[in-house]
Amino acid sequence: MKDFSHLYSNATKWAKASVIRELLKVTSNPEIISFAGGLPDPQAFPSKKINEMLNIVLKRYPFSALQYGATEGSARLKTELIKWLKKTEKIDVAPDNLLITSASQQALDMVSRAFINPGDKIVVTNPSYLGALQAFQSYNADIVGADSDGGGVVPESLEKCLKQIKSEGKTCKFVYLIPDFQNPSGVTITQERRKKILEIIKKYNTVLVEDSPYRAVRFEGNAPDTFYHLDGGKGNVITLFTFSKVFVPGFRLGYIAGPKEVIRKFVILKQSMDLCSSKILQLATMEYLRNGRLEPHIKRVVSIYKVKRDLMIKALKKYMPAGVKWTEPAGGLFLWVELPKNIDTEKMFPTAIKNKVAYVIGSAFYHDGSVKNNMRLNFSYATHEEIDEGIKRLAAAIKDYAK
Amino acid sequence: MKDFSHLYSNATKWAKASVIRELLKVTSNPEIISFAGGLPDPQAFPSKKINEMLNIVLKRYPFSALQYGATEGSARLKTELIKWLKKTEKIDVAPDNLLITSASQQALDMVSRAFINPGDKIVVTNPSYLGALQAFQSYNADIVGADSDGGGVVPESLEKCLKQIKSEGKTCKFVYLIPDFQNPSGVTITQERRKKILEIIKKYNTVLVEDSPYRAVRFEGNAPDTFYHLDGGKGNVITLFTFSKVFVPGFRLGYIAGPKEVIRKFVILKQSMDLCSSKILQLATMEYLRNGRLEPHIKRVVSIYKVKRDLMIKALKKYMPAGVKWTEPAGGLFLWVELPKNIDTEKMFPTAIKNKVAYVIGSAFYHDGSVKNNMRLNFSYATHEEIDEGIKRLAAAIKDYAK
Repeated sequence: MKDFSHLYSNATKWAKASVIRELLKVTSNPEIISFAGGLPDPQAFPSKKINEMLNIVLKRYPFSALQYGATEGSARLKTELIKWLKKTEKIDVAPDNLLITSASQQALDMVSRAFINPGDKIVVTNPSYLGALQAFQSYNADIVGADSDGGGVVPESLEKCLKQIKSEGKTCKFVYLIPDFQNPSGVTITQERRKKILEIIKKYNTVLVEDSPYRAVRFEGNAPDTFYHLDGGKGNVITLFTFSKVFVPGFRLGYIAGPKEVIRKFVILKQSMDLCSSKILQLATMEYLRNGRLEPHIKRVVSIYKVKRDLMIKALKKYMPAGVKWTEPAGGLFLWVELPKNIDTEKMFPTAIKNKVAYVIGSAFYHDGSVKNNMRLNFSYATHEEIDEGIKRLAAAIKDYAK
Repeated sequence: MKDFSHLYSNATKWAKASVIRELLKVTSNPEIISFAGGLPDPQAFPSKKINEMLNIVLKRYPFSALQYGATEGSARLKTELIKWLKKTEKIDVAPDNLLITSASQQALDMVSRAFINPGDKIVVTNPSYLGALQAFQSYNADIVGADSDGGGVVPESLEKCLKQIKSEGKTCKFVYLIPDFQNPSGVTITQERRKKILEIIKKYNTVLVEDSPYRAVRFEGNAPDTFYHLDGGKGNVITLFTFSKVFVPGFRLGYIAGPKEVIRKFVILKQSMDLCSSKILQLATMEYLRNGRLEPHIKRVVSIYKVKRDLMIKALKKYMPAGVKWTEPAGGLFLWVELPKNIDTEKMFPTAIKNKVAYVIGSAFYHDGSVKNNMRLNFSYATHEEIDEGIKRLAAAIKDYAK
């Protein structure tokens, strides 16, 4: 077979296969209870309503729904999103502040492409969403990790990172945060810290990429403001939203809110990335929003996931040996487990598989793989019975491994 | 407003706004007859059948259709594509030779990303599809143009380009061709030349990217073999197919056939580009294929476009002044008009708009913008009446401008 090694670009060397996608293959055995994926509960999908919306769209727009669309996204969908952001987030945007994307991952790719030259500095939290790390690494970003705790990223640590970068005569191209129910930790940045962080972003003349896939999935308590709202349209924040967790991932739709100038650059990049996102799916989502279906649907998702979170925490308390800690997130899809320092969750993984349970190894969420004794557990996908049984198996695996 | 100039990457400088997308904005005036876009005729869209397929999919797969899918693409869709390629193109592939993409533009982006480092050499024909040039330029490829004539790219010219690159001690990362009903010229590469070209690709140890969006839209005559078939799975050819022209563009679906090793690299890139393409639309397309709907649908598209091509050629003969030449393509969506050397179609464009007709300027299809006296006309979108009236207006504009 032909040898391609002299033809490949550097990007193929920088791009790493996703740990999760590879793990999911291992766990395709139906006997294994997997807390590894980040999949929404399919029982919550509004399949019937989606069918209705698609029927309406094909009746009302039989031609334009199936044609190429504008790269910027459907104007009709943007109209509904502007109302939605105003109502749910007190965010005021014009159509030119919005770009419809082929879900969050494309937005992460777009942000990387627009800002990162090979070797450029960016700042993320330790730990951070591995799909984002994967995108940044595929552009060969020089990633710096700021510390986080139960209140999210520590402002003083963030400032220290930015100061260090500046002292090297370099520019931090952006700071990447998931402020609400962070993936993987489940932690939310407090309101007080948000104000401090925004000041730091301005002081160091960089931009904040606010990734917000889970924000609407809140079980209790009041939400702090989005960074986008706090910034008041001054252009210091680019926010990534997606329909994957609050509606369905199968539509591959999300949207970016940001300064008009940046959105214009993104539109030009999207022209050569995929021309436009699916028009029929944009219109069906628009109808879903226009008919006021999204709000009650999110309430339903929240009630389903809250029960599952509670069950998982109950099971952790019931089964886990001493020395194991976990976060208790007020929303989202994930919680974060910390094992005693001497347990490397990657090395423990085969023992877990032997016990027929799976998780994502914690080191995958560290850009440098430095921390080994954590694991991310997803509580949205497994059934009630599987959550109890799976945590029981996981506790057994930890005891087995620690022996 | 915040200044972003210190934050942007080089990619934002290399990426150029698409001439067509900008032109389309100028021509949104409904009084203007536009031959500028590359839009399929929406009257040919099988909206009713698509509605049926979506209903079936949501009934049969209410959960998995709306969930995340495999990055590689739906295994069910691949099964149907393998049968389709075997039947229609005598192409034998395994599932690992295929990757489902978010249509052709994503495939062009993926090919660029996998092979081009900034400054790398690639070879295209003069002229070439501008969406491909835009993708290649956004990665800062150093593009070399080979000559083409009525039989497609001239093998001797292609070899000269590759020889020159080799003599400079450089590598041609790939050769990009649209062998059938080329965009913009409408020309098809002859069978004899295909064999020669494949030998040249092998001799210079590069790879051929065969872009094949229009191949199935053939009005008359026999199709030469695809390069993929001619290569017999030896790994010298990567072929890009799309459903945009033979089915609907609004689904944003296409597929790449290539060596397993290359497809594996593409899958890793796609993980960080958009995770996966829409599952529900992949399954609806799968049902359409499985029910044997695609073949009769293509026959219908062919019969509609053939009439339109004939009408456009008839109108050109009727209205155009002496000295104007055009290609007579045996398929596809476009023909290519050559005006006398002293007419610059970009400079003439305002005169055309004044005459309420639009086209794409020929120089947009030259990587160096060097040839000025051509225009691309699309015959698939306009109605019969518009084709006659539009060509009449275009002829008047040429006469006006040449005065």
